[in-house]
This record gives sequence, structure tokens and C-alpha cells, in this order.
Amino acid sequence: MRTYIIPGHRVTSGADFSLNDLSGSTGRLDVLLRSINAAFFLSNGFRQDAELYLVLLGQPDPPKALKFVGAEMRYLNPDERSTAALVRTALLRKCGGEWVNSTPGIYVARKDFAQVLSEAAGDRPLIYLRENGPDARGALAGIKDPAIVLGDQLDLTPEEESLVASKNAVKVSIGPRSLHTDHCITVINNELDRLGI
Amino acid sequence: MRTYIIPGHRVTSGADFSLNDLSGSTGRLDVLLRSINAAFFLSNGFRQDAELYLVLLGQPDPPKALKFVGAEMRYLNPDERSTAALVRTALLRKCGGEWVNSTPGIYVARKDFAQVLSEAAGDRPLIYLRENGPDARGALAGIKDPAIVLGDQLDLTPEEESLVASKNAVKVSIGPRSLHTDHCITVINNELDRLGI
Repeated sequence: MRTYIIPGHRVTSGADFSLNDLSGSTGRLDVLLRSINAAFFLSNGFRQDAELYLVLLGQPDPPKALKFVGAEMRYLNPDERSTAALVRTALLRKCGGEWVNSTPGIYVARKDFAQVLSEAAGDRPLIYLRENGPDARGALAGIKDPAIVLGDQLDLTPEEESLVASKNAVKVSIGPRSLHTDHCITVINNELDRLGI
Repeated sequence: MRTYIIPGHRVTSGADFSLNDLSGSTGRLDVLLRSINAAFFLSNGFRQDAELYLVLLGQPDPPKALKFVGAEMRYLNPDERSTAALVRTALLRKCGGEWVNSTPGIYVARKDFAQVLSEAAGDRPLIYLRENGPDARGALAGIKDPAIVLGDQLDLTPEEESLVASKNAVKVSIGPRSLHTDHCITVINNELDRLGI
């Protein structure tokens, strides 16, 4: 099991967005859509053992959290537009503090980053992807069922960093160049695949 | 310098497609759009030293080749839709066997896979990404200015494989799971970054 957690710092928490403008008017929902793709897709297959949590912190109704469960997922295609439609469907559901199922494998709730982090990571080892951390090649060896926190196109806030640090997160980096969030997930997935984690 | 070459076996060679349906009616142009993203984008930056060649072999007007030159590129955004608009603009240009510039860094010509392979790879080391090849970790060490051939969602045809083999391509693989084309590019980019290539 591998679980990814990403705060969408400015990403819309409402369903009133156009599928024709996913990067301009959504607070960069497009970054998270590509991260969904990276977290789950294999060539001719699907990562049943993956989970992804997104925390949408933009207007008009923050915080909203989305949970994607690989083992239950259906109707997910790799393109941004159809994935955005699934996200919009989820954001149309009324929800409170408990998860509400939207489409198969996709859940929505009113939860903030601290709540999602506690729930998603639990007592599992927490990995925090940072440019100045030790190399993931080596640092991830022997870690079982990791939960991995990444920023979206913005770094984690000091408050989010404190939360992550309070859970004894292990910082890791993935190479000499700073990459987009979805590319980071792809590289981490490859490393975990190689380690058989 | 790193150069990626991808044949789009069924991808439309014409501009008559809708930006609202990039995966259904285009012969999976979406796979190539994500590959463009993977080839060029860094966090807050751009891979100036990267090139990408796409060979569009679907109807209505094959073959058409597109060339993306990192050092000249402008107006490229990471989302699929805006990248598709740039591809459509290129496919609207009339062209023959010589490259015609469309938007900055993007060129179009009537070239088939053999022509593109000869031009793109030249005398440089040719890498062919295959599931049964030796591990890229190790196999890529010491290689300078590689040209890298990948399939789209379909494997290379026997004819394309023969062409690649005739150029003494080195087969490499990237891990135990078979990945989408764009994910393969991300992993290869990370490996080349680490090697300083």
C-alpha cells in the first residue's frame, strides 16, 4: 500500500468550474489531475494498492478533501478532462466531516490538511518529498506501506510543514532537478516498484 | 541534449479534432500531449536541452511529423488542452518534406518514422525503451546526447523495430512495472538528470 497526500493550496473547493479551463480558473486543479493520473495508471493496468488524498483549500467552500482508492476505482481515464469531470461530480455532493462516496473509488468530505494527514498516514511511515532531503534511492529502502506528502505547485506552508514534522516525517528528494508534483509521483512510484514496496 | 522520438500509430494527422475530446476521437493524441509535458517541464522551469519528435500515423493525412525544440519553445503550458491547441495550429500549416515553423519551437513536416529516426538520432547513441531490456540504471551511464525511442500506447511495429535495430539501438528498461509513455519519459529524464547527461 502506498498513499499520496497533496494539499491544493489554491485549488477550487467548488464544482462551478469549466472543463474547458482547468488551469486558469480553478487554482491549478490541473496539477492535481495529473497527479491522479501519475498515482494510479500503469500501462494496461491500474495501481490497486495506491491511495491518493487531495485537500482543496481554494474558494468557495474550503476545506474539501477528496480520497481516491485504487482498489475500488472505476471510470478513471488518464486524460485531464474526464478526470476533472469526476472531481466535479464529487464536489457536487453534499458532505460533512465523514467521507461520502461519489463515483466508485472516489470520496469527498469536509476535512482539512491536519485531519487528512492523521487519517491517511495513521501510524505508517510518513515521507515528505523535499528538494533538500536525502536521496529516495536508499532512503526508501525497507519502508513498508509509506504515506507520502508532496506540495502542489506551491510549497507546504509553515503550518503544514510543522504538522508533517510532528509526525516524524522522513524527508527525501528524488534528484538534482526540481520537478512537477505529478512527475515526482511517477519517480517515487518507480522507486517503490523497484523496492517491491 | 536529449531527444525523444515517439510514433503515434493511430494519432490524427489532421487538425479537425475537438479540444473537448482529446482521447476519444484523435487516435489517442492525449498520450502524446502528456509526453510533451513530460519531456519539457521542470518545476518553475523548462528543459532547454530537450527535443521531442512525434510521428502522426493516423488518418486523414499521414505521415505528419512534429518537432518540439526546447531551446526555442514558448507558449507551452503543462495542461493537455492548451498543448493540443498548439498541435492543432501546427497541423493546420501546409507542409512538405521540410520542416515548417508553426509557433516558437514547434515545427511540422511530412516525414515518416524512418526519416524522423534518421534525422533525430543522426550518429548519436540510440536508446530503445523496452520492457525486456537491461536496466536504465547502469545502461545509460556514460552515454552522451542520447536519442530515445518509445512506443505510444501501442508497441513499435516489426518494421519500426527493424529500423531501430538497424541503428544499433541499445534496449533499456526502467523497472518491474510497465508504464505509460509519459511516465517512462519522466523516469528516463530523472535518470539522465542524475547522470548529468
